[in-house]
Amino acid sequence: MADRDRIIVTLGETLAALVEAKKYTTLRDILVTMNATDIAVIFEDLPETKLPLLFRLLPKELAAETFVEMEPEAQELLIQGFSDNELKEVVDELYVDDAVDLVEEMPANVVKRILKQADPEMRKMINEILKYPEDSAGSIMTTEYVSLRPIMTAEEAIKRIRRTGVDKETIYTCYVTDNNRKLVGMVTLRTLLLAEEDDRVEDIMEDNVISVSTLEDQESVVQMMAKYDWAAIPVVDQETRLVGIVTIDDAIDVLQEETTEDFELLAGMTPSDKPYLRTGVFETWKSRVPWLLILMLSATLTSMVLTGFESSLAACSALIAFIPMLTGTGGNSGTQSSVAVIRALSLGEVEFTDTVRVIWKEIRVGVLCGVTLAACNFVKLLVVDRMLLGNEGVTPLVAGVICLTMVLTVLCAKTVGCVLPLLAEKIHLDPAVMASPFISTVVDVTTLLLYFQVAKLMLGI
Amino acid sequence: MADRDRIIVTLGETLAALVEAKKYTTLRDILVTMNATDIAVIFEDLPETKLPLLFRLLPKELAAETFVEMEPEAQELLIQGFSDNELKEVVDELYVDDAVDLVEEMPANVVKRILKQADPEMRKMINEILKYPEDSAGSIMTTEYVSLRPIMTAEEAIKRIRRTGVDKETIYTCYVTDNNRKLVGMVTLRTLLLAEEDDRVEDIMEDNVISVSTLEDQESVVQMMAKYDWAAIPVVDQETRLVGIVTIDDAIDVLQEETTEDFELLAGMTPSDKPYLRTGVFETWKSRVPWLLILMLSATLTSMVLTGFESSLAACSALIAFIPMLTGTGGNSGTQSSVAVIRALSLGEVEFTDTVRVIWKEIRVGVLCGVTLAACNFVKLLVVDRMLLGNEGVTPLVAGVICLTMVLTVLCAKTVGCVLPLLAEKIHLDPAVMASPFISTVVDVTTLLLYFQVAKLMLGI
Repeated sequence: MADRDRIIVTLGETLAALVEAKKYTTLRDILVTMNATDIAVIFEDLPETKLPLLFRLLPKELAAETFVEMEPEAQELLIQGFSDNELKEVVDELYVDDAVDLVEEMPANVVKRILKQADPEMRKMINEILKYPEDSAGSIMTTEYVSLRPIMTAEEAIKRIRRTGVDKETIYTCYVTDNNRKLVGMVTLRTLLLAEEDDRVEDIMEDNVISVSTLEDQESVVQMMAKYDWAAIPVVDQETRLVGIVTIDDAIDVLQEETTEDFELLAGMTPSDKPYLRTGVFETWKSRVPWLLILMLSATLTSMVLTGFESSLAACSALIAFIPMLTGTGGNSGTQSSVAVIRALSLGEVEFTDTVRVIWKEIRVGVLCGVTLAACNFVKLLVVDRMLLGNEGVTPLVAGVICLTMVLTVLCAKTVGCVLPLLAEKIHLDPAVMASPFISTVVDVTTLLLYFQVAKLMLGI
Repeated sequence: MADRDRIIVTLGETLAALVEAKKYTTLRDILVTMNATDIAVIFEDLPETKLPLLFRLLPKELAAETFVEMEPEAQELLIQGFSDNELKEVVDELYVDDAVDLVEEMPANVVKRILKQADPEMRKMINEILKYPEDSAGSIMTTEYVSLRPIMTAEEAIKRIRRTGVDKETIYTCYVTDNNRKLVGMVTLRTLLLAEEDDRVEDIMEDNVISVSTLEDQESVVQMMAKYDWAAIPVVDQETRLVGIVTIDDAIDVLQEETTEDFELLAGMTPSDKPYLRTGVFETWKSRVPWLLILMLSATLTSMVLTGFESSLAACSALIAFIPMLTGTGGNSGTQSSVAVIRALSLGEVEFTDTVRVIWKEIRVGVLCGVTLAACNFVKLLVVDRMLLGNEGVTPLVAGVICLTMVLTVLCAKTVGCVLPLLAEKIHLDPAVMASPFISTVVDVTTLLLYFQVAKLMLGI
């Protein structure tokens, strides 16, 4: 991939030089051999003023495809430079789901122009999709699918696909509906093509079709497609009438977005849908500072615990040196379980009803990990800290306090780490917000309380 | 999805009851209406001894599909129960890439039986794919693709697809090769079907086909397919001869696996490819304890720093209470940048050559975040800790020490957080190992050193 990216950068420089030299025919000849995704990347790096001119060099279809791949800012700029006719040409070539994305991104006055240039059929479809809530199956579906009737023969079906297929998002998965637009089956072009010409659609179709409702959450739609290896999934309304389909290419985009969102939440950042290097410093600050602030302020609790035990600490100052190790190990243990559970939840491997099984597993893992760590730590404390580093405060009894705290901390952290994401799922929060930073704060306080209680009991301070 | 899962659980119970009651005809009638993925899930929960019997109820094709979806343990069990003839029937129905996955999972004696039952053509293809390194494009490709010749007409091409398509993994993307098997173009079934019958393939094909080499890393292959919205990508050898294709359904599986792996590394766990609830306690312990141990032992550094400054801490004990807040905020800040960079790297938005841009961005974000946090903290320290909680050790000067340390810590953490993953990428390590737990340990030590230096300078202790 890196190699390819470098080639595109070099190509971009060549094209920029050609623009500079006004060699438009050569430019056009090169552009038509390229694909829309790469052209979009290169165009974004060229001076804005050249954009409308370059765009006009592209053949109609490639122009529309390139347009779809560009960032909203560049799209707006282009539309502002378009004549009504040019705008119509681009809009006519768009698939309806891409048109919807565009309408959602543009300011009101641009949207008005777009809808005015769209033909009535397209306008109706755009408005149809726009009414579904964000992140629902309805909002990511397209209404441009192939629908067949049960009584058609394979030959008739293929003829119909040939006639109407050019405007459809996919022709490879076709849906079979009855007179009331109710979904009754699904048939792939592969099945149609490999069947006998006079086989009836109803005889060769899959009639146990799994569909999703328009309001289904987009993430679960996509996980379902990934699980069953489907190229498309039908979307139906409350009366099980077919209203649209979600295709795999759009599903993958959703998958990537949702994954990025999980990573961002996991690290305590407000999700953003812009690529890293295109997000401004101020915007990045805005997405990061709220969580840092909340977590910093909630650390007041740890300060309070430490202040409360100031006299105990003064009595046995050797304990202070191991606070970061204990809270750190607690935090890491908790992060491991929370991330494992968060991922399992988002892959659908675990759900809320599994809570008891999950906790039972984490408790056992916690005991194993805690005991292993404590044993190693005990040896390390006496050999490294006491003997090698000459820290005389680390008596066997102090080492015992530290190691007992270690076992309890790891156990608590593992339990808290697995429970919080499950609770979040239950109350319909994204489990990923319960990740690393949040868990660490909870675990820090718990660890300190445990540490001082154990010290009090064992050292009598 | 959850609803659907519940339905499958209920259905599983019904089927188990039918097995118990030996109502095999009813069972068969239900099973044939279901899809392979769901059947596999249900079969795995039934008693092992019933498995071979149930499996024999399935029609041939569905049986093979179900087999592919099962866990390796169940597959092995089934194969051991198969007669040679039954095994041959299943193997004959498998796509070659699924057969390769099977061969890779099974113990040697089972592999021998499988290869013996595979027909010579299949055996040759399996061995072909097996020779590519793990995680390479070659290892995830299939050799069952449709290849066309440039001089064919659209009609001839479609006829060829009808004739040979039944064994191909996909018939929707076809590749055009010359007499030396060199890749010269790509044409979709859609284009063929919508073209005139006597259009030549060479005139309607895409001749600027992007391909990957057999040794390309699977993750970058998949990111490329996602970026360009491709349903398949051709894999070529050193002489640009077409040797196979990777299809989107397999690409999505790789994408999911790689994402899970990133999550696991991010949380300091050794990646495992088993679902959460299917991984045993001991196995989970083994994947988690090494990182915890390493990080716990490396915390010896923080203990050393703290012990070294014991006398300073005794002189101004108020400082102790804010250690977890400072190290915590540092850790969180570092995690934010490292995770943002790790994700950008894996989406191909950033690469090593962007290092300077990334650092410059993180420094500015770090200053903004650090100053915001320090300002809020200063107010909080004087109002909450000093006035409300009556902690008299928190003088304005002490608050100043804490807040100056805060700015420096956040700045360092952001820089370290973005640099480490980029360095890992450079030396061909997975950047995700440089995440949260690792960064926290580095940041803890830095924070403490900064804290005591600032305290020494400002408080003269």
